[in-house]
Amino acid sequence: MTAVRLSELAAALNLEREGAIDPVITGAAGIEAAGPGQITFVDSPRFLRHLGASRAAAVIVRPGVECPLPCLRAADPHSVFAAVLARFAMPRERVFPPGVHATALVDPTAVLGVGVAVGPYSVIGGSARLGDGCALGSHVVIGPDVVIGPRATLYAHVTVREGVEIGAEVILHAGAVVGSDGFGYRQGAAGLVKIPQIGRVVLEDGVEVGANACIDRAQTDVTRVGAGTKLDNLVQIGHNVTVGRHCAVSAQCGISGSSQLGDGVVLGGQVGVADHITVGDGAKVAAQSGLDRDLPAGAVVFGSPAVERRRAYRLVALTHRLPELFARLRRLEAAIGVEDASRDPEDPE
Amino acid sequence: MTAVRLSELAAALNLEREGAIDPVITGAAGIEAAGPGQITFVDSPRFLRHLGASRAAAVIVRPGVECPLPCLRAADPHSVFAAVLARFAMPRERVFPPGVHATALVDPTAVLGVGVAVGPYSVIGGSARLGDGCALGSHVVIGPDVVIGPRATLYAHVTVREGVEIGAEVILHAGAVVGSDGFGYRQGAAGLVKIPQIGRVVLEDGVEVGANACIDRAQTDVTRVGAGTKLDNLVQIGHNVTVGRHCAVSAQCGISGSSQLGDGVVLGGQVGVADHITVGDGAKVAAQSGLDRDLPAGAVVFGSPAVERRRAYRLVALTHRLPELFARLRRLEAAIGVEDASRDPEDPE
Amino acid sequence: MTAVRLSELAAALNLEREGAIDPVITGAAGIEAAGPGQITFVDSPRFLRHLGASRAAAVIVRPGVECPLPCLRAADPHSVFAAVLARFAMPRERVFPPGVHATALVDPTAVLGVGVAVGPYSVIGGSARLGDGCALGSHVVIGPDVVIGPRATLYAHVTVREGVEIGAEVILHAGAVVGSDGFGYRQGAAGLVKIPQIGRVVLEDGVEVGANACIDRAQTDVTRVGAGTKLDNLVQIGHNVTVGRHCAVSAQCGISGSSQLGDGVVLGGQVGVADHITVGDGAKVAAQSGLDRDLPAGAVVFGSPAVERRRAYRLVALTHRLPELFARLRRLEAAIGVEDASRDPEDPE
Repeated sequence: MTAVRLSELAAALNLEREGAIDPVITGAAGIEAAGPGQITFVDSPRFLRHLGASRAAAVIVRPGVECPLPCLRAADPHSVFAAVLARFAMPRERVFPPGVHATALVDPTAVLGVGVAVGPYSVIGGSARLGDGCALGSHVVIGPDVVIGPRATLYAHVTVREGVEIGAEVILHAGAVVGSDGFGYRQGAAGLVKIPQIGRVVLEDGVEVGANACIDRAQTDVTRVGAGTKLDNLVQIGHNVTVGRHCAVSAQCGISGSSQLGDGVVLGGQVGVADHITVGDGAKVAAQSGLDRDLPAGAVVFGSPAVERRRAYRLVALTHRLPELFARLRRLEAAIGVEDASRDPEDPE
Repeated sequence: MTAVRLSELAAALNLEREGAIDPVITGAAGIEAAGPGQITFVDSPRFLRHLGASRAAAVIVRPGVECPLPCLRAADPHSVFAAVLARFAMPRERVFPPGVHATALVDPTAVLGVGVAVGPYSVIGGSARLGDGCALGSHVVIGPDVVIGPRATLYAHVTVREGVEIGAEVILHAGAVVGSDGFGYRQGAAGLVKIPQIGRVVLEDGVEVGANACIDRAQTDVTRVGAGTKLDNLVQIGHNVTVGRHCAVSAQCGISGSSQLGDGVVLGGQVGVADHITVGDGAKVAAQSGLDRDLPAGAVVFGSPAVERRRAYRLVALTHRLPELFARLRRLEAAIGVEDASRDPEDPE
Repeated sequence: MTAVRLSELAAALNLEREGAIDPVITGAAGIEAAGPGQITFVDSPRFLRHLGASRAAAVIVRPGVECPLPCLRAADPHSVFAAVLARFAMPRERVFPPGVHATALVDPTAVLGVGVAVGPYSVIGGSARLGDGCALGSHVVIGPDVVIGPRATLYAHVTVREGVEIGAEVILHAGAVVGSDGFGYRQGAAGLVKIPQIGRVVLEDGVEVGANACIDRAQTDVTRVGAGTKLDNLVQIGHNVTVGRHCAVSAQCGISGSSQLGDGVVLGGQVGVADHITVGDGAKVAAQSGLDRDLPAGAVVFGSPAVERRRAYRLVALTHRLPELFARLRRLEAAIGVEDASRDPEDPE
């Protein structure tokens, strides 16, 4: 367990420290959960009220905030807290013991960089190349001709199929599959006929792929995820999709074949994107929405099919008023003596 | 293959047996599929008509029901049938051969209880503790500092990451991932910056987690699934979520970060729960619904966004009458000579 | 790398070749991406305009189309292209090296056909039978009593649990789980009580199952996927489901327990099918739809709950006109002097 004086954290992070005592910090927690030995933070004024009752050993707060606990002062407490968290994470060497485990099978034609860790029972195929400082957990399977950049992290049970290209500092969480066949068939006389999927997948630098997520290889050409983009667990990326840079794709989203997302796109959970759709830079799609057509840059949408978000919520609100609408209509009909048309099978609209 | 006389089943389950013959039972099946040698059950009166044509060897029925087949009498045939099924399941020792397989890698600092089974190629990390009678299939990966209670069952390819705590009699199905990083980032100048996810996951006693389901570790603190709760396949539980006790979460549901479900909550398939939502005890959410706000205890809802279920279905029904509504409106407009407002760009609502 | 003269492709595929030169072909790509050495195709007239600027080495086109590049003539360029792709795929022997790897654990009672490939660390249980020419990647786990037909392909980390039956030429992509327990419980006094799931799964000939997809075993009887049916990544098939022949089930669909799909059914992405539903032959369900009742053969539907597709889109369009509807109603009310009923709490509809 890491144990560090608050004064050491202050020095390491170059922050002002306040308080009569200099507690030993052994962990970090949110403001409501933090207990003895733990450091926490308060970013939003509405959480300041928790400070009085907190059992935390110390807290990170904005300058000027009155604080009954030993504290560090920072203009952006949340980002400083993130830096503190890194110090209390299990050391990388414990999660990924250094060196190539004796049971790992590394093809003689594979090339491993300096300081690569390969866990038990992992298998690395012919001509694969792993950059310096890569860490592979247990049971990782790397196919032939795969290229992985420096300092990538692959957790247990990840599968990277043949020819996939992975950039620097990419993180693949447990069970993720990269390079599976795209869902491509043509209708033959006797049923669906598989179209060979011979393209590649490229994950650019800094991409993170969630647990049990799936990224299909292209039919030909490339399925690409741009630099810095984060995909959450159980996400599905179809063949020949391009996801731009610095996107955030929440859990259980599915992006169908050949669609193209721009940079900085944000998808809420369980969003579906139809095939051959283009989504502009910075578009935001609320959870459970379905995109069935192109979106311009900066669009903010909701619904299935999705429309502009404020409009979508207004339509939801008006839908909730349908009972009232029918009542008002009936009253009008009564007022002017028109028979209720609902008994009329004709529907001219 | 298990083979047992109906009279033996009757004795073991303490039930009344009827019928001139005492058939040998070798399996169990539903009423429509049951064939020679198989026992079945009839719970609902509408299935009684199948009894005449059934080729089943025996049937479990309520007292007083006329039955042309050898039968066992029980007030609750379904629950008795479940007890019978257990006798015809493949023996646990065949699915999980006893002992630690020679190829399993158990860290010298790990502690295994009495009667633990560990399958081929499984890997158990440092300081992990497995309770008595745990059964691990092939290729299970247990990280450092994991604690697993007695009689837990982990199928092939399960990943349990560092520090996760698992209760007694928990079942993790194949490919499930427990303790993956939460989806936590902050917006930095050059894109999304990962926030270290250093919290834990606690699965309380009796939890069952479906195949390829994912449960993220907390950022700090704990992601918790309460005792007796069942999660189906491909479910996603975000970081810092709390799921209460005895909940049923159907396949492909996703629960976003920090949301809290009470006890006895039931989610249909593909439900999405937004982040920081509180769902009261006993709430029921129909399939494909989306929760974007808190639900009180006992609520029964449907829709995306979800509303009270009867209301939701009424709104669906009224939406289906929109063509009629437009027609009636047009007729009224014609009757009083008001011009069709649809040509008016103004929209005062 | 495969390298072949265009004339050799023409001969192998029995097609007419045109053009002054006979280029060496080393790969294949789509019309917009194709570069030197690559063959491409043009099926639709709207892509013909790309031919002039293409750097492709050759192109497959319909008879009669003017073509500035060396070309092959075919009535169905797309299907010929698929045949060409197969020649440029990584050879099966490279992806699945022949023979049983020294680290594979094959139970002595298992029976392997001729030419079976088993990758590193795969585990094959007692009494399992694998047909001729099956190929298993690394870390495949086959339970006891599993039967697999000839020429099946199982990628890395696939789990096939005890007693599952798999037909000829079935493909299981990485991480797929076949035969996990169905989600079956009964309400007991102290919470949900697990009902043993002792049935089987049968995947008929030619079925393809996507990466990290899950197919639950039946409670009793059989969960069945019909011949030629293709399931995409992350699909969930519940216990006792029957999927017919030659269906296409897109990514992230979920089919709940005991539902029955006919032949040739097509489900778009993220579709949900409730339990005990019957879907007729050839029905088509648009993405994100939810089926809560039976569908007749040939139905084409959309929405959650799903209705006939044209009707669904019309209802969406009319919903988008709700602001106009309210405005028209208000105008009518003003014209005849009826008070706005929205202030009336009574709701007679």
